[in-house]
Amino acid sequence: MIEFNELTDFIRKEFNRELNKYPIPKKPRYLYDPIRYTLKGAGKRIRPVLVHLSGRAFQGDPDSIMKIALSVELVHNFTLIHDDIMDNDDKRRGKPTVHYQWDNATAILAGDGIFTMSQLIMSSISEQTDQLLRFFNQASLEVCEGQAMDKEYENNLTITSDDYLEMIEKKTGALLGACAALPAVLCDRSDITVEAMDIFGRNLGKGFQIHDDLLEIFGDPDKMGKSLGSDITEGKQTLMVIIAREHFKEEWAALSNDKGKKLEDYRNFFSRNEIEKEVRESAKEYFKNAVQQIETLPHNHQIELKNFISMVQNRSS
Amino acid sequence: MIEFNELTDFIRKEFNRELNKYPIPKKPRYLYDPIRYTLKGAGKRIRPVLVHLSGRAFQGDPDSIMKIALSVELVHNFTLIHDDIMDNDDKRRGKPTVHYQWDNATAILAGDGIFTMSQLIMSSISEQTDQLLRFFNQASLEVCEGQAMDKEYENNLTITSDDYLEMIEKKTGALLGACAALPAVLCDRSDITVEAMDIFGRNLGKGFQIHDDLLEIFGDPDKMGKSLGSDITEGKQTLMVIIAREHFKEEWAALSNDKGKKLEDYRNFFSRNEIEKEVRESAKEYFKNAVQQIETLPHNHQIELKNFISMVQNRSS
Repeated sequence: MIEFNELTDFIRKEFNRELNKYPIPKKPRYLYDPIRYTLKGAGKRIRPVLVHLSGRAFQGDPDSIMKIALSVELVHNFTLIHDDIMDNDDKRRGKPTVHYQWDNATAILAGDGIFTMSQLIMSSISEQTDQLLRFFNQASLEVCEGQAMDKEYENNLTITSDDYLEMIEKKTGALLGACAALPAVLCDRSDITVEAMDIFGRNLGKGFQIHDDLLEIFGDPDKMGKSLGSDITEGKQTLMVIIAREHFKEEWAALSNDKGKKLEDYRNFFSRNEIEKEVRESAKEYFKNAVQQIETLPHNHQIELKNFISMVQNRSS
Repeated sequence: MIEFNELTDFIRKEFNRELNKYPIPKKPRYLYDPIRYTLKGAGKRIRPVLVHLSGRAFQGDPDSIMKIALSVELVHNFTLIHDDIMDNDDKRRGKPTVHYQWDNATAILAGDGIFTMSQLIMSSISEQTDQLLRFFNQASLEVCEGQAMDKEYENNLTITSDDYLEMIEKKTGALLGACAALPAVLCDRSDITVEAMDIFGRNLGKGFQIHDDLLEIFGDPDKMGKSLGSDITEGKQTLMVIIAREHFKEEWAALSNDKGKKLEDYRNFFSRNEIEKEVRESAKEYFKNAVQQIETLPHNHQIELKNFISMVQNRSS
């Protein structure tokens, strides 16, 4: 894995270099100061790395692949800024969120500006432009749908595991699907290949999100750059919460209605009742599905993408 | 003018019919209910009418022209939803604004969804797709910049007429420029023609916005579907306010600092000091510039666009 880590570090650095080179105007400062602030944030760049790995598998033109990576990361950042307003989150990657550092109006507009910039970058690719843009915006609309479902589900105690899985496929899976599939679209690969890459990314995304929910409870607050457990206090219907509510009804009701309970109490509850174990198994299943999808690719192209799955699966922040 | 009114009514009806046919999913309701609510609103459809008139001048494919009209109107609606949150407006075209009817989170997401839909529609045009999208998104980014400047200028007493004119060119002019220019882009006309149409639309937009500011003070509240004078209470730096501040310093300070003053007092002040007259002249100048730009077009194509300018210039709501 040492070599693979070096590869992803290299991609991340190249991507950050390219992002820093992207000309962001000085004025109006009301629009571009918060955009600069957001893009300087040290994200994990999971999406750009995936775009580049998929681009290597299909031998896409490196400049176009970099543009896809930039567009996708900008869309991701746009959704984070707006989601943070909607969810009233004050911290992101250890830094104050945009609406917290400035105000809601500034953050709304910063998100709009970043989304528009992502469209401009994607439309500057000279091959397969309209196919790329259609795929990209279909995925973006699904991300909006996923966020809508996430808001709709808050404090809704009738939400099932299937509802939750549909929601995270849209909110997280669709864009990771696009990361994996867009390089295949760029290289004019068959519909079957594009779809396989999309499904691979969607499964990876579901595994990723379930793993994320686990980190939100069992992670290290220092590594995560934020306080943990807010999913529960905000009434988010994660897989763990749904299983607890459906299978440990009374104990869960007592626990979640007691405002005095701490993160430690939730950890104990989820571990003792083997909910943690069940949910970890579920994430593993999606990562396995992701692996299956890429087994149709030429052998040497599988390796990097499989290493990437392992990296996502084992991340601790 | 009777015939021209019939033409614009026809375009408006056809446009609304097409917009109503556009398939908006039922679920998630959190996303699509407010989108449906917004698009059902009876807007004046000034932008779609301009797209169609420009499309007739260049004999663009009617289906593609309709798609451009839909995309542009959706972008316009997206910006209205987000601007209404930022400006805390509770009424739009006589109906509660989205964030007022629902809440901020819903309205942010509805705007994002409409903007994404507009990208999907534009990218479904099969000719000149990438050129159209680049022009369209450059204009959209300028709209964001214009809104940023508008927010930056609030209560800033150093703003000059030139600052204001730069702001409205971006906030209102850029999208009207795109309405006029995109049909020329679609029909692969020369850069000179595309630019002339853009400048025509930008001048029309400036005239339109200055006229709008006048209606905000001198209009009929019933026809406007909202209460008037909020520009002043919100500290918006319109041309009238800037002239008042620069040339009638003490009288303006006394008037604008007196919370007891009514719309009627402002009307009297602006009329008596001939500020109204000066600003009406300024709007007229931009409409005249717009006319000049289209005089390079074949004669029979000029007539409808000139009639359109007159229509915008004489509107009372």
